[in-house]
Amino acid sequence: MAWSTNLRWRLPLACLLLQVALVILFGFFVRYSPDADAHWGEEKRRRNITSDLENEFYYRYPSFQDVHVMVFVGFGFLMTFLQRYSFSAVGFNFLLAAFGIQWALLMQGWFHFFEDGYILLGVENLINADFCVASVCVAFGALLGKVSPLQLLIMTLFQVTLFSVNEYILLNVLEVKDAGGSMTIHTFGAYFGLTVTRVLYRHNLEQSKEKQSSSYNSDLFAMIGTLFLWMYWPSFNSAVSSHGDSQHRAALNTYCSLAASVLAAVAMSSALNKKGKLDMVHIQNATLAGGVGVGTAAEMMLMPYGSLIVGFICGIVSTLGFVYLTPFLESHLRIQDTCGIHNLHGIPGIIGAIVGAVTAASASPEVYGQEGLVHSFDFQGIKENWSVRTQAKFQIFGLLVSLGMALVGGIIVGFILRLPIWGQASDENCFEDSIYWEVPEEKSTVYIPEDPSLKPSAPSIPLAPLVHLGACLRMDKEEQQTKWASKPNSACRRESEGPSLLPPTPPSCPLTMSLSLSLSLLIGAAALPGTNAHGCR
Amino acid sequence: MAWSTNLRWRLPLACLLLQVALVILFGFFVRYSPDADAHWGEEKRRRNITSDLENEFYYRYPSFQDVHVMVFVGFGFLMTFLQRYSFSAVGFNFLLAAFGIQWALLMQGWFHFFEDGYILLGVENLINADFCVASVCVAFGALLGKVSPLQLLIMTLFQVTLFSVNEYILLNVLEVKDAGGSMTIHTFGAYFGLTVTRVLYRHNLEQSKEKQSSSYNSDLFAMIGTLFLWMYWPSFNSAVSSHGDSQHRAALNTYCSLAASVLAAVAMSSALNKKGKLDMVHIQNATLAGGVGVGTAAEMMLMPYGSLIVGFICGIVSTLGFVYLTPFLESHLRIQDTCGIHNLHGIPGIIGAIVGAVTAASASPEVYGQEGLVHSFDFQGIKENWSVRTQAKFQIFGLLVSLGMALVGGIIVGFILRLPIWGQASDENCFEDSIYWEVPEEKSTVYIPEDPSLKPSAPSIPLAPLVHLGACLRMDKEEQQTKWASKPNSACRRESEGPSLLPPTPPSCPLTMSLSLSLSLLIGAAALPGTNAHGCR
Amino acid sequence: MAWSTNLRWRLPLACLLLQVALVILFGFFVRYSPDADAHWGEEKRRRNITSDLENEFYYRYPSFQDVHVMVFVGFGFLMTFLQRYSFSAVGFNFLLAAFGIQWALLMQGWFHFFEDGYILLGVENLINADFCVASVCVAFGALLGKVSPLQLLIMTLFQVTLFSVNEYILLNVLEVKDAGGSMTIHTFGAYFGLTVTRVLYRHNLEQSKEKQSSSYNSDLFAMIGTLFLWMYWPSFNSAVSSHGDSQHRAALNTYCSLAASVLAAVAMSSALNKKGKLDMVHIQNATLAGGVGVGTAAEMMLMPYGSLIVGFICGIVSTLGFVYLTPFLESHLRIQDTCGIHNLHGIPGIIGAIVGAVTAASASPEVYGQEGLVHSFDFQGIKENWSVRTQAKFQIFGLLVSLGMALVGGIIVGFILRLPIWGQASDENCFEDSIYWEVPEEKSTVYIPEDPSLKPSAPSIPLAPLVHLGACLRMDKEEQQTKWASKPNSACRRESEGPSLLPPTPPSCPLTMSLSLSLSLLIGAAALPGTNAHGCR
Repeated sequence: MAWSTNLRWRLPLACLLLQVALVILFGFFVRYSPDADAHWGEEKRRRNITSDLENEFYYRYPSFQDVHVMVFVGFGFLMTFLQRYSFSAVGFNFLLAAFGIQWALLMQGWFHFFEDGYILLGVENLINADFCVASVCVAFGALLGKVSPLQLLIMTLFQVTLFSVNEYILLNVLEVKDAGGSMTIHTFGAYFGLTVTRVLYRHNLEQSKEKQSSSYNSDLFAMIGTLFLWMYWPSFNSAVSSHGDSQHRAALNTYCSLAASVLAAVAMSSALNKKGKLDMVHIQNATLAGGVGVGTAAEMMLMPYGSLIVGFICGIVSTLGFVYLTPFLESHLRIQDTCGIHNLHGIPGIIGAIVGAVTAASASPEVYGQEGLVHSFDFQGIKENWSVRTQAKFQIFGLLVSLGMALVGGIIVGFILRLPIWGQASDENCFEDSIYWEVPEEKSTVYIPEDPSLKPSAPSIPLAPLVHLGACLRMDKEEQQTKWASKPNSACRRESEGPSLLPPTPPSCPLTMSLSLSLSLLIGAAALPGTNAHGCR
Repeated sequence: MAWSTNLRWRLPLACLLLQVALVILFGFFVRYSPDADAHWGEEKRRRNITSDLENEFYYRYPSFQDVHVMVFVGFGFLMTFLQRYSFSAVGFNFLLAAFGIQWALLMQGWFHFFEDGYILLGVENLINADFCVASVCVAFGALLGKVSPLQLLIMTLFQVTLFSVNEYILLNVLEVKDAGGSMTIHTFGAYFGLTVTRVLYRHNLEQSKEKQSSSYNSDLFAMIGTLFLWMYWPSFNSAVSSHGDSQHRAALNTYCSLAASVLAAVAMSSALNKKGKLDMVHIQNATLAGGVGVGTAAEMMLMPYGSLIVGFICGIVSTLGFVYLTPFLESHLRIQDTCGIHNLHGIPGIIGAIVGAVTAASASPEVYGQEGLVHSFDFQGIKENWSVRTQAKFQIFGLLVSLGMALVGGIIVGFILRLPIWGQASDENCFEDSIYWEVPEEKSTVYIPEDPSLKPSAPSIPLAPLVHLGACLRMDKEEQQTKWASKPNSACRRESEGPSLLPPTPPSCPLTMSLSLSLSLLIGAAALPGTNAHGCR
Repeated sequence: MAWSTNLRWRLPLACLLLQVALVILFGFFVRYSPDADAHWGEEKRRRNITSDLENEFYYRYPSFQDVHVMVFVGFGFLMTFLQRYSFSAVGFNFLLAAFGIQWALLMQGWFHFFEDGYILLGVENLINADFCVASVCVAFGALLGKVSPLQLLIMTLFQVTLFSVNEYILLNVLEVKDAGGSMTIHTFGAYFGLTVTRVLYRHNLEQSKEKQSSSYNSDLFAMIGTLFLWMYWPSFNSAVSSHGDSQHRAALNTYCSLAASVLAAVAMSSALNKKGKLDMVHIQNATLAGGVGVGTAAEMMLMPYGSLIVGFICGIVSTLGFVYLTPFLESHLRIQDTCGIHNLHGIPGIIGAIVGAVTAASASPEVYGQEGLVHSFDFQGIKENWSVRTQAKFQIFGLLVSLGMALVGGIIVGFILRLPIWGQASDENCFEDSIYWEVPEEKSTVYIPEDPSLKPSAPSIPLAPLVHLGACLRMDKEEQQTKWASKPNSACRRESEGPSLLPPTPPSCPLTMSLSLSLSLLIGAAALPGTNAHGCR
């Protein structure tokens, strides 16, 4: 795979074309919902509302903002754990989500908010768009480090489309309940992503294996993502539930489930390590499994202890998955799942779907109240004669449809993404920001803060080489490659060309001044005593 | 203290047992509150409510989420300031909080939300559970770096219990007002933690002293914690206040107090430094003291200028505490307070309690209105004949009870934690993540981004050794210890075993190729000219 | 410029005096608004309100918290992108904002919330204060790295004053609509800051040029700021809009505009780079331009596609500005704009003002409804006879007034800040935290985690020098400067003075032990074979 990774024309063109297309489609199709339109005053009278608080905005907006944070900071930072791929993790997630929400507003709008030829936009649309994009972020997790931003845009285009179709089938045809999207978001997103990564299998990915690990700081950045996902997940699962008890209950159940996941993940992480040490991968991911697992049943009368059990099981299963299943999938099924989304979204998503079906099947008028049962499962109109068993059966159909759509869609999209035109990186350059980003040069890590109020009278001799090294390395990359590759010995000359904090080395290189030679040269020099020892001549 | 720190069986067992116990207790005791139950429709009719907005969820949920962020991101990241203990700071905080909130839901539930044999769960319970856990996080601050996760779980178990008892005594027996928990959360948490750390005094802690400092990035991570605590503190102090003016006023007062703390902390930090420089410790902590100090009086008519004065004093006192008191406590009273919680939560907590008592004592019908006075201090039912002086007296009793509970409880729990069975680290291994975590190896910090689209035809000579060093160091720890300790010269052989970005060194080591020797060997080589100069032979 | 940067007396005095003055002014002028006063019960009856939810708190508080996060975390972390100025970025932003909000509560209070001799404080005041301070944060962006905290306090004092006057003229005299503050906040803040930085022009700033770049981690920290600004911008632009549809619509429009900005910024960033690579500066900044550009028109019937167009144009223009305009401004107009605020707030602010005028001019009863038109533009009372064209005309006047105030105010404040008494740094010490902060020493970056449960029996030889270096460098700065500058060879002696994790080197330095010499000495030693090869003698 020696295709060019220079995206100079392809990426801008794709972005601009997509955005122009979105503008045109929005122009034709998107208007404000009555709650956001200047005719709201008339609407209030029509609906006999006296308070502006009844505007959907005040019911949903705080939840929307929490979900928004989950998509952009949560997923974005969760994926920064790779040591040299944090820019891409947070940046590409930003890009695909910003495109995805616009496209989702249209797709979901046509399916769910279409009236008199217009999609009516309100805060609920925004939440749904974030939900849809969350499923793309999930799939991105499997592909992290192996795809170009162009591939991600293409994938988002297709996945949002498929998501919307699948969601429509589940919610409107099968009349499934799926408040937190265990099926529509997590199961669909995970198996879609896994299928795509299977199709895009890279034979020589071990060439970039060492970049597939984390660093101390990248793991901490990832914890920002984890915690915002964890904290706001109750908002996620309750964001579009019915006003009142449903929304309230969905938040409570999710909260309980997540708390149990943490203890389960910690327990398993320690138990599965020879020395009983915790693994950041598990803490970053498996602690969240409870939120996925309780997604479908969150707004049902799952009971707090039921939520704890779900979270507990998901936390255990998820950690086991990271330890045993991910390596197996990679070695036997050729599924390279960078973030382990199968463990965080795949299996817990399926568990969530099943829990939802079981909870629905065991719903009874004693627990819900007759009115509550009808209200919770919408047993009116077309569903008037449904029993809870019918509901449960359709819940399972929903799961199967989601899995089917994910697999078929993933295969198709995977093969599209395999076309050698998307600027994807070669196997040895995976997990490397500098392919798609201008990455700042790191200066010498031995930082010696100078106190500017106290200028040393003489250069501090033993440290000079190190600071020096930093200065030399801070050249821009172009120069570096040409200069250092072709005429390596010129490196230390740099200091007289550019600004430097150090006193310039004189053009002549007497023995006593060679102390301030740059470290890189010095090493070479030291290893060749007698032949080239003074470098800068 | 040469006890094993391998927690492989103890930590998992503790987590699993605690979680199973919680599941069982939840099963017996916890149900949904009417606002979260599917019978909400009937409840609305019963309470004659027409709008779902009157569901407690919409009053409290945004505040709950802010408090939730404070507990998990706020406290978690605030404690990441240590250079090699950030995983533990944020991870153990996550663990203890996730366990603590579940246990707090039960303990506080039995005391405050118990009806007909069931604890009724709603969003207010969640906020209270977060409050309770916040006091454990405070105590954790004193112990940071010196305790095992197992000890933290045990401490959380006991501290949540004691917190709930103390809170019950204060709020329900003494009828104290304590909106933001100056007494129940901060004073109790701080003196409990300080007592525990006193009992756990480590004689040779200076052995790990250098790990007790921060690094540039760890200080920045800590600022994430500081800022989220600072920004959301108005939500904290107002989260469970009465609907309407009390909640509104509590937020305003806290906002003012916090703003004043910042200027006070900056002023003192600069004034107490020889060169007038600011100290990150003060900016990270003392800026928050105003939130603690205004906790009790926040919902009273403290007046905006009163809040400013409280915040101002707390900011000054807190910074002085960091500079003078913390060293004194450590050297004279043997209280090793890692985060300086005495300065952020201890003293400001006491100030807050006193401010609350004074503000209560000076409450008058002119300021509150007759109706407002009754409403603000609940002067009805059992308190019908209370004067504001009675209230003030009981406020002071509340402070004393909190201090007493903290000291007695802290001593008992401290001695329990001293048992040599909890996997605590030895003195020289304190403040070190790698005892309890798999810590990623750091690669060489001199990072030279390669441009993959432009493969150098020849290895760039002077840089090779540095990249090389990185590659060598990226071995996993097991190998490192055995290989490097026993056969140090084998390090550079590593490159032919594992994948490498560099052209493999040939088995023979001619003089001209020795340029690419690894840095570590080179140094040894260079220092022994003639004897061992070519390392890889 | 060899002025002292020691702020020991000046900064504390300034902070304390300002805070005391604020306390006094608050004491005379600030009381609670009816919604936050204990008389709320009577107020409810007076206004015939039955539910506490009608308290302004519940309408505005979630939006307030989002705006609060934008000011403190958003702006604070956005500016951490410089490699050695992150403490100052987040810390000084914290300081100026904490002072600024208090002063803004007074200034804006006198203009907008003054009744019967008192400023009445409520949640809306807090939002407005955050808005005002946001404009100071914008201006800070131009000055970042070049001013002392004292200068920032002085600037905040004046800028908040000018902002309030300008805001009063626009909103109350010219009756301009400016929901998200394209004019009052962004245009004013940007051109004020640019004028100040022009007056403070530093001739030799290239001396600190290399510190003006970012590092990998600092860019990631900056992304935290970017994302929180981006996510919460819909709250920013809608926070003080009228209840109901206006607030709802403002959030929707901003959301759309921001999404389009991301694709535009990515497209232009890639297209303008030779290798098609993305530049973090553009991703961090230009993605936000849509939020600025839609500020004025957000609450109008801009239509979703209109918002997309605005965001799209702003994203493109902003990126172009970073690439072409910022260098031009610096080289030709001597405007040193550290963060490029001209591209993020200046031009998009002007675009926003114009979009607002055009949108107002094209408002019609067909789109708004007769009632909606009156409600949206306040065409009643004094404005009863206004046409939409009048409104548009005054919108443009508003822009011109803002620009004028910014330029005149900026010149005056700039000259005040040029006085040589504020502790500003010399040109070569700009962008350097250690002037105003105690900065932690960085340890050697080659971190070798020791497994404490497995103590090596012998020191691991090839690594020792590196660890050693770390130990040596961890001295505190005072010692370092005196010791290393004057007697460089004593560095390795340090280990026997302080606590060390390594076995102490024996006082004698036999050849076989010289392996453990510190790296710095070694390099010197290696370069001088024969003369000084064994360093530690």
